[in-house]
Amino acid sequence: MKKIKIGSVGLGRLGLQHAKNIASLPNAELVALCDVNEECLKKEATALDVPKTFTDFNAMIADKEIDAVCIASPSALHPQQVCAALDAGKHVFCEKPLGITVEDCRLVEKACAAHKDLIFQLGFMRRFDDSYAYAKEKIDAGHIGKPILFRSYSQDPEKFIEGAIAFAPHSGGQFFDMAVHDIDLARWMIGDEPAEVWAIGGCYAHKEFAQYDDGDNVSALMKFKSGAMGFLFAGRTAPHGYNVETEIIGTKGTLRIASVPQKNLVEVLGNGGITRECSENFLERFEKSYLSEMSAFCEAVISGKPAPRGGTAEDGRRVTEIAFACREAFISGQLHKIS
Amino acid sequence: MKKIKIGSVGLGRLGLQHAKNIASLPNAELVALCDVNEECLKKEATALDVPKTFTDFNAMIADKEIDAVCIASPSALHPQQVCAALDAGKHVFCEKPLGITVEDCRLVEKACAAHKDLIFQLGFMRRFDDSYAYAKEKIDAGHIGKPILFRSYSQDPEKFIEGAIAFAPHSGGQFFDMAVHDIDLARWMIGDEPAEVWAIGGCYAHKEFAQYDDGDNVSALMKFKSGAMGFLFAGRTAPHGYNVETEIIGTKGTLRIASVPQKNLVEVLGNGGITRECSENFLERFEKSYLSEMSAFCEAVISGKPAPRGGTAEDGRRVTEIAFACREAFISGQLHKIS
Amino acid sequence: MKKIKIGSVGLGRLGLQHAKNIASLPNAELVALCDVNEECLKKEATALDVPKTFTDFNAMIADKEIDAVCIASPSALHPQQVCAALDAGKHVFCEKPLGITVEDCRLVEKACAAHKDLIFQLGFMRRFDDSYAYAKEKIDAGHIGKPILFRSYSQDPEKFIEGAIAFAPHSGGQFFDMAVHDIDLARWMIGDEPAEVWAIGGCYAHKEFAQYDDGDNVSALMKFKSGAMGFLFAGRTAPHGYNVETEIIGTKGTLRIASVPQKNLVEVLGNGGITRECSENFLERFEKSYLSEMSAFCEAVISGKPAPRGGTAEDGRRVTEIAFACREAFISGQLHKIS
Amino acid sequence: MKKIKIGSVGLGRLGLQHAKNIASLPNAELVALCDVNEECLKKEATALDVPKTFTDFNAMIADKEIDAVCIASPSALHPQQVCAALDAGKHVFCEKPLGITVEDCRLVEKACAAHKDLIFQLGFMRRFDDSYAYAKEKIDAGHIGKPILFRSYSQDPEKFIEGAIAFAPHSGGQFFDMAVHDIDLARWMIGDEPAEVWAIGGCYAHKEFAQYDDGDNVSALMKFKSGAMGFLFAGRTAPHGYNVETEIIGTKGTLRIASVPQKNLVEVLGNGGITRECSENFLERFEKSYLSEMSAFCEAVISGKPAPRGGTAEDGRRVTEIAFACREAFISGQLHKIS
Repeated sequence: MKKIKIGSVGLGRLGLQHAKNIASLPNAELVALCDVNEECLKKEATALDVPKTFTDFNAMIADKEIDAVCIASPSALHPQQVCAALDAGKHVFCEKPLGITVEDCRLVEKACAAHKDLIFQLGFMRRFDDSYAYAKEKIDAGHIGKPILFRSYSQDPEKFIEGAIAFAPHSGGQFFDMAVHDIDLARWMIGDEPAEVWAIGGCYAHKEFAQYDDGDNVSALMKFKSGAMGFLFAGRTAPHGYNVETEIIGTKGTLRIASVPQKNLVEVLGNGGITRECSENFLERFEKSYLSEMSAFCEAVISGKPAPRGGTAEDGRRVTEIAFACREAFISGQLHKIS
Repeated sequence: MKKIKIGSVGLGRLGLQHAKNIASLPNAELVALCDVNEECLKKEATALDVPKTFTDFNAMIADKEIDAVCIASPSALHPQQVCAALDAGKHVFCEKPLGITVEDCRLVEKACAAHKDLIFQLGFMRRFDDSYAYAKEKIDAGHIGKPILFRSYSQDPEKFIEGAIAFAPHSGGQFFDMAVHDIDLARWMIGDEPAEVWAIGGCYAHKEFAQYDDGDNVSALMKFKSGAMGFLFAGRTAPHGYNVETEIIGTKGTLRIASVPQKNLVEVLGNGGITRECSENFLERFEKSYLSEMSAFCEAVISGKPAPRGGTAEDGRRVTEIAFACREAFISGQLHKIS
Repeated sequence: MKKIKIGSVGLGRLGLQHAKNIASLPNAELVALCDVNEECLKKEATALDVPKTFTDFNAMIADKEIDAVCIASPSALHPQQVCAALDAGKHVFCEKPLGITVEDCRLVEKACAAHKDLIFQLGFMRRFDDSYAYAKEKIDAGHIGKPILFRSYSQDPEKFIEGAIAFAPHSGGQFFDMAVHDIDLARWMIGDEPAEVWAIGGCYAHKEFAQYDDGDNVSALMKFKSGAMGFLFAGRTAPHGYNVETEIIGTKGTLRIASVPQKNLVEVLGNGGITRECSENFLERFEKSYLSEMSAFCEAVISGKPAPRGGTAEDGRRVTEIAFACREAFISGQLHKIS
Repeated sequence: MKKIKIGSVGLGRLGLQHAKNIASLPNAELVALCDVNEECLKKEATALDVPKTFTDFNAMIADKEIDAVCIASPSALHPQQVCAALDAGKHVFCEKPLGITVEDCRLVEKACAAHKDLIFQLGFMRRFDDSYAYAKEKIDAGHIGKPILFRSYSQDPEKFIEGAIAFAPHSGGQFFDMAVHDIDLARWMIGDEPAEVWAIGGCYAHKEFAQYDDGDNVSALMKFKSGAMGFLFAGRTAPHGYNVETEIIGTKGTLRIASVPQKNLVEVLGNGGITRECSENFLERFEKSYLSEMSAFCEAVISGKPAPRGGTAEDGRRVTEIAFACREAFISGQLHKIS
């Protein structure tokens, strides 16, 4: 079996998961790791049996053995790293967001257009979740008719609130940090772009977010060009766990994905009633999706054809535009048009 | 609207509920109450605005104004009271069990046969529950094909265990005290009689039941004459609440009734997960069924035709026979044939 | 038991249900019916054994025997009939909406203020549903903390679309016709009033609604004065049945009511999977609520104290104001402030 | 990363899945395939890029490069192949059943005892399912107290009935063919062995099974040595899909695994109601479990310690004994003791 030789940059929580996934895939080989933290770099390289390590991303992409890179570095670095890697002839898998400004995203779009022979895939892992993929197939097959309302929630557990507060200065706000996945799903499942948005919310439990023009819980209502409606809710204070839930109502039927955010198939009948426990966090909920998207990326590199469900640079730029529009509407209190 | 004038005997928890239900029905009038406890009798008669009170059942049934009696006295008294009431020309609604011996039940069957002009209805209220009735309609309409397996659970909450222990000397054991409703449902939903049974169980949490040849949790597997299978489980130690759940698997489909023993339509998403709270007890779960069965009894008296779903004396006798067979099998450890 | 003597006006589908409910309640007596359709009036009076009939509402409220009136006439007549009945010294139960203009609603508010000795109750039956009432108790007890997001759906089945189209010229639009119940719930459960709203939607399946500045599916996002968010969706094209579903997310927990719009407790395992069937329509879903609200009204008249959960004239006026604001936002495409 | 070199025998549906899983695991290398069907052998070896192929099992185990074998050949061959492989110094993963007679199973037990340095693991994949594993942890941690009742269903879809009928002469009957997984779970989750069993059932839809002393749907009730109860149901005629569902009721709580046999997290709201679609078959339902058990086997070989949840030869022998006891009880109509 052909194995894609991958170098991966960034060893944060998700970066490490990507590295482990690459190491475990039959169609990939993790040949290099890159991170500025040397101690962490050595530890993980040893644990994962990775032959090469780099503290300099440009050095890594200069390595001729490497076919492709996985980028899970801080968001602000994504655009320049993607462009550099493409220019160095590497296929690129990049974690979301594509960039933290629309201009940066447009640079990546151009780089992708200039390197059509290289595979680029943006990390919208929900598209690779079995349930989301199944729902998309049903929509595409016409089972729900014409989309009327898309609704999606992304809620982080309250127990992670301290980390969220610490990250708040750098997060770009909840629409940018959390709701981008819901925004991507809305576009992907409706098959259309939003034209106008209103967004509200606030600091219901943790006033710390206010100084960053952000809230601990926010929502947005969008009108799509086709007339479809989209409602997003993003929160950080769910006591019950990690809750990502999506619904699409059409003229002929409705699909709900994970309306009960169940951890597994176990029900507990005990004091209090009948309980379904929830996923702990995104790594638990989307464990398999992260693996599937990376496998699909490797297959894309092998076959030379982009993964059918993979996010493109255009997807990344549009999602960033929409997230910014939501943020503008939230801050101004006004309706915001999206070009 | 024609109103049936009813005298009701027995002011225990369920007897009082029956009295309240009669008082609230548009086609009934609660004209008399009977109980040996004079204090309780006066209190409830005042509360429910009932004109006549009796401490002697025979005096009540001698009252010419009374059209029908509701019998919710201690189980051992049921057969003689039913017979006396029928002989006095009264229609009779009798709470389960029909009697505590098969011989007693046969006496009631004879009395019913001798008074075909009078309505007799045994209190198998589950048949009047919206969900059980809906399931029965589907079965009768052929939706599940031929019955394969009937399964039914009756679990009382652990929090009522002290009352259960106190009542144990008089209960007749769990098959007789609790499982009779499941036995009745099995016969009613399968449309057949069991031919052979094995029963097991024990005292898993409360050894007090052992001295009465009973267990705190028991089960029985039955072979019906047609070949259908029936599995019953009756328990007294459910921490989650009152749990009555029934399933019937057929060759073309399966129906489940109350597989989540939910109290209402509220889900609570909180610490621990997504929870459906349970019913507290049989009065909460079957509140509407008790009202419906009494209304159906009154309609039956008015129309002169037995309620289509009402329990008959034969039903009562057969259920008693089957419950005794389960108990015999449980005590002997052997298979037990049912004639 | 004291019985309130009630005259009921309007024998449409819901009016007839109210009449039947009054006739069946132990604390009420249906003494008069009023409708302009004489044939229907006679038929139902006979069926329900009602002694008096009127084709003139003013004649009915002149009847000294009558304690209270139930108003289920066409919406445009509600305000004048309520005022006339109060002036005639009758207690009043009035079906929603209170009136079809805010000015009309204010007249009723004044009449109620002038007759504080009389009970007035507006028909927001969902407040009397076991599940909504249970959720409200939990909210009031602090179980969910501070409200963050209220979400509510009201969907009629597609199979009733012809009737909806026929009624469209008179309905006042979906916010006024359907969403008023959700608007009332939002205010009642959050305990606050909305300050600003945006509304969108359209004719996704049936263009007939467009000529009335209405859509077949619409939604609204609201900012409440306290900062809480409210999202409403009202649709007329649900293939699965009648779907009324409500969620309230708070800082300490979330409550969902009827997230699976199940008809009863039966699950069907058959071709296609595991299915919960839905309620057919509002009369099936809220059968018991309609009875409970009327019983509560009668108890209120008897005790002289308004039903704790009963809708007031102010509730009716505010709901009408909010529904109009939604409609204005929907038509104009702009944000709309609510005074 | 250390990779275990595995040769796999048997390329039926499950054997092929095992081969694919081995090929995809980071801690394994599929170095050889063995099957009597040369055409199939070549095709799959090419597809999976496997260097060596054998039509003779003994030739394969003579290969010095091979560390371990995976046995997914016809059941009757399992015992001798396991023994031969162990004698040849190979670690062994063997698909269930261990053998089709208790005597054969005892031979394997002896071989395992004689080769304690080698890892042997029997393919009870349900133990490696996330939900079953989670439930087992909760039981072991005391969350449900003392086991009272274990209940487990295994239902194949009706749509596979032709294959089931064709295989009936060789299947050993439903207790042996299907219920062995439930029997294993019962022992594993209760932590005890059954002492006595009664079994019933029949041919409800397909009389073809009768000639093999089998039924299309069967059940068994077991008394465990500790007094716990066990109820198993195995069917071949489920219209809704593949249904494996397990429940364990304890003195302090109840756990249910897959009580809704959902395919994924998608709910479909459409004609008929709210539907959860079911898994198609065992490969879909237990896809991840098959991978996990093989990964655990490889880890066991690497570490030299048997997988904590892995099935042993003793497990295999006991399950076979119990399945035979069920079959005896089913055929004789009598209670059957288990030594």
